[in-house]
Amino acid sequence: MNLDALYSELTLKPTAKVALVVLDGVGDIATREQGYLTPLEAAVTPNLDALAKDSAQGRLIPIAPGITPGSGPGHLGLFGYDPLEFQVGRGVIEALGLGLELKAGDVAARANFCTIDAKGIVTDRRAGRIDTKVCEELCALLAQKVTKVGDAEVIIKAGKGHRFVVIFRGKGLEGPLADADPHREGFAIPQATPVDPKSAKAKKAAKLVAEFYKAALPIIAQKKPANGFLLRGIAHQPEIPLFKDRYGMRPACIAVYPMYKGLAQLVGMTKLEGSQTIAEEFERYLAEYDNYDYFFIHFKYTDMYGEDGNFAAKKKAIEEFDAALPILLRKKPDVLAITGDHSTPCAMKGHSWHPQPVMLQSLCSGSDKLQRFTETGANSGSLGIIEAKYLIRLMQANAKMFDKFGA
Amino acid sequence: MNLDALYSELTLKPTAKVALVVLDGVGDIATREQGYLTPLEAAVTPNLDALAKDSAQGRLIPIAPGITPGSGPGHLGLFGYDPLEFQVGRGVIEALGLGLELKAGDVAARANFCTIDAKGIVTDRRAGRIDTKVCEELCALLAQKVTKVGDAEVIIKAGKGHRFVVIFRGKGLEGPLADADPHREGFAIPQATPVDPKSAKAKKAAKLVAEFYKAALPIIAQKKPANGFLLRGIAHQPEIPLFKDRYGMRPACIAVYPMYKGLAQLVGMTKLEGSQTIAEEFERYLAEYDNYDYFFIHFKYTDMYGEDGNFAAKKKAIEEFDAALPILLRKKPDVLAITGDHSTPCAMKGHSWHPQPVMLQSLCSGSDKLQRFTETGANSGSLGIIEAKYLIRLMQANAKMFDKFGA
Repeated sequence: MNLDALYSELTLKPTAKVALVVLDGVGDIATREQGYLTPLEAAVTPNLDALAKDSAQGRLIPIAPGITPGSGPGHLGLFGYDPLEFQVGRGVIEALGLGLELKAGDVAARANFCTIDAKGIVTDRRAGRIDTKVCEELCALLAQKVTKVGDAEVIIKAGKGHRFVVIFRGKGLEGPLADADPHREGFAIPQATPVDPKSAKAKKAAKLVAEFYKAALPIIAQKKPANGFLLRGIAHQPEIPLFKDRYGMRPACIAVYPMYKGLAQLVGMTKLEGSQTIAEEFERYLAEYDNYDYFFIHFKYTDMYGEDGNFAAKKKAIEEFDAALPILLRKKPDVLAITGDHSTPCAMKGHSWHPQPVMLQSLCSGSDKLQRFTETGANSGSLGIIEAKYLIRLMQANAKMFDKFGA
Repeated sequence: MNLDALYSELTLKPTAKVALVVLDGVGDIATREQGYLTPLEAAVTPNLDALAKDSAQGRLIPIAPGITPGSGPGHLGLFGYDPLEFQVGRGVIEALGLGLELKAGDVAARANFCTIDAKGIVTDRRAGRIDTKVCEELCALLAQKVTKVGDAEVIIKAGKGHRFVVIFRGKGLEGPLADADPHREGFAIPQATPVDPKSAKAKKAAKLVAEFYKAALPIIAQKKPANGFLLRGIAHQPEIPLFKDRYGMRPACIAVYPMYKGLAQLVGMTKLEGSQTIAEEFERYLAEYDNYDYFFIHFKYTDMYGEDGNFAAKKKAIEEFDAALPILLRKKPDVLAITGDHSTPCAMKGHSWHPQPVMLQSLCSGSDKLQRFTETGANSGSLGIIEAKYLIRLMQANAKMFDKFGA
């Protein structure tokens, strides 16, 4: 039997408030150089400690052993969508990250400005890493001149440096397409072709991409050094079952950064905008407490400082988070999960595959008798070391949202 | 999505040296009679202890909960091949164990000399457990008289006691065949028949087996007590994806016993022959360090003494292994995994299903803050209690051989 179908069948109406608090990339590793402590272990966290005493703990494998996730699959897993089943194209993630609102059927592509020679050969895939300001000017020019190709609307938005995003909004489109990118210098830009040659919708999308090149390239042909562009990760927004249908809870997202709002929007969460700090995010939760059943609250800085390899700053970010926690606890969620979407070890300056620690608290979570919330403690917690996609099921169970299976 | 396909897609070129060190059957259980200590716990292991401080630990389920593996599936799992997907016939394992080199398409059978009466009824399935010497004489006689059946070459090799191996080397053959063995006394030897009746190749193999019986039985008909033989586990060497293609690493095997060299050969590892002791095996690793990316180093004695139920000797074997370990560490592998292929508890005098402990060390393994490498400690390690087939994926991740999944 399909497990998701079983969960659905057993699902009861929510009578509890459920909150998922994500400290992005919070998981870390203890190394000799760091005195065998992780940032979570080194941080002073009286409020997390107090919660730990009445919590169950464990660790979450984001995807599968050894696989390092991007933010997209990391969050989809926490939202209970198997990241291997629900794959989201890089163009879509990039568009979400720039705050673009995608509609069903939109095909999105990550784009780079590049340099091409007179014969159309790519001589620099990043056009000498042009300034963001130059990129914005070029994008404004293209957006002004190319608003449609065929029967599809074209939306262009600048990112950082040489990066931008192109969206094709029309009828009967789908991805994925193979990249219009030779992936190395010295070759011409290949045509974007359907990954599935039998898909008529992908064929149409490929035709639109070709027309876009035809219309856009002449406009920047005389620019230096960015006189061409590459399109990659060309894909449509996948069909994802709506969160409220799948779990029977009204979901809300409280996040600061566009990428995470975008990922929440992908599964149909309501975005509660306007917060800038974690304190404001918790205040917003309090204000909206009665309006939703499930709150996804995102804290970015643990990941950011992990990426920088800045142990002290990651530790401090955790302490700042901890200091704000009492605001959330003014109306304590009936079920509270605190975890990461993956680990971002300072020693690695990037995302990793190490399972992130998770702490789950409710009236029926039980206590694992751990005094703190740490990676090492979580190793011996009662939740075990499990795939991240099961977290929401444990949250639903703690919210008493599942009927008994069998007599 | 198929997980192995995903791992393949994410695999990058190796830039690190990776070593899998297998202490065969090292896992054990703590019993009252043994003072609640396992051999690993009782042994004095300063070098393993030193490694443990900077390692991640966990336990590996060889196949599935409760399933006790033979050496074949035990090692295939460690090599990352799901032992349920890649099944190797017992005839093939037995042939490998006797040091025979199998070729693609060879069909191999485990054989027993037995005693049959005038009507062809099996009266003793092991012919009174004849001496190895008698077995060798009978095999030599058969090998001399029966070199071919049909268009296939016949290769016969004696094992221990009443055991031997028969290989059919010809065109268009495959297994598996049902055993030419009644599995109990008082019945005639059944014909070996194809497990898949639709397989023409298996039909041909069955015909050759019947012809072999016709040719061979009369030769030993007057011998006592071994005047017949049974053929079991009749199968061909399965198609197994080559290790170097599957993982992108050049693999080498350093082992003393033929069985383990044979299993390594099954997946295409280069066999580095000639070592007799673990110290020599580690020296060989040092000598070949630059020539391979992945080293499988096998230590037999932990299993052997576990099978004997000899706690003191198993403990001593671990201490001898530990004493040799500094040789390996002269050129420390970038990623080092130390584990067993299964447990062989002294109290059980045989293989068991208990997950074997594993210790994984690299610059990004992190430390689980365990002071030693033991079964009980490994229970609370960050790797969790996972299927053995994932170990190689964790080793690849620690070698930074995987690209990020998703954006």
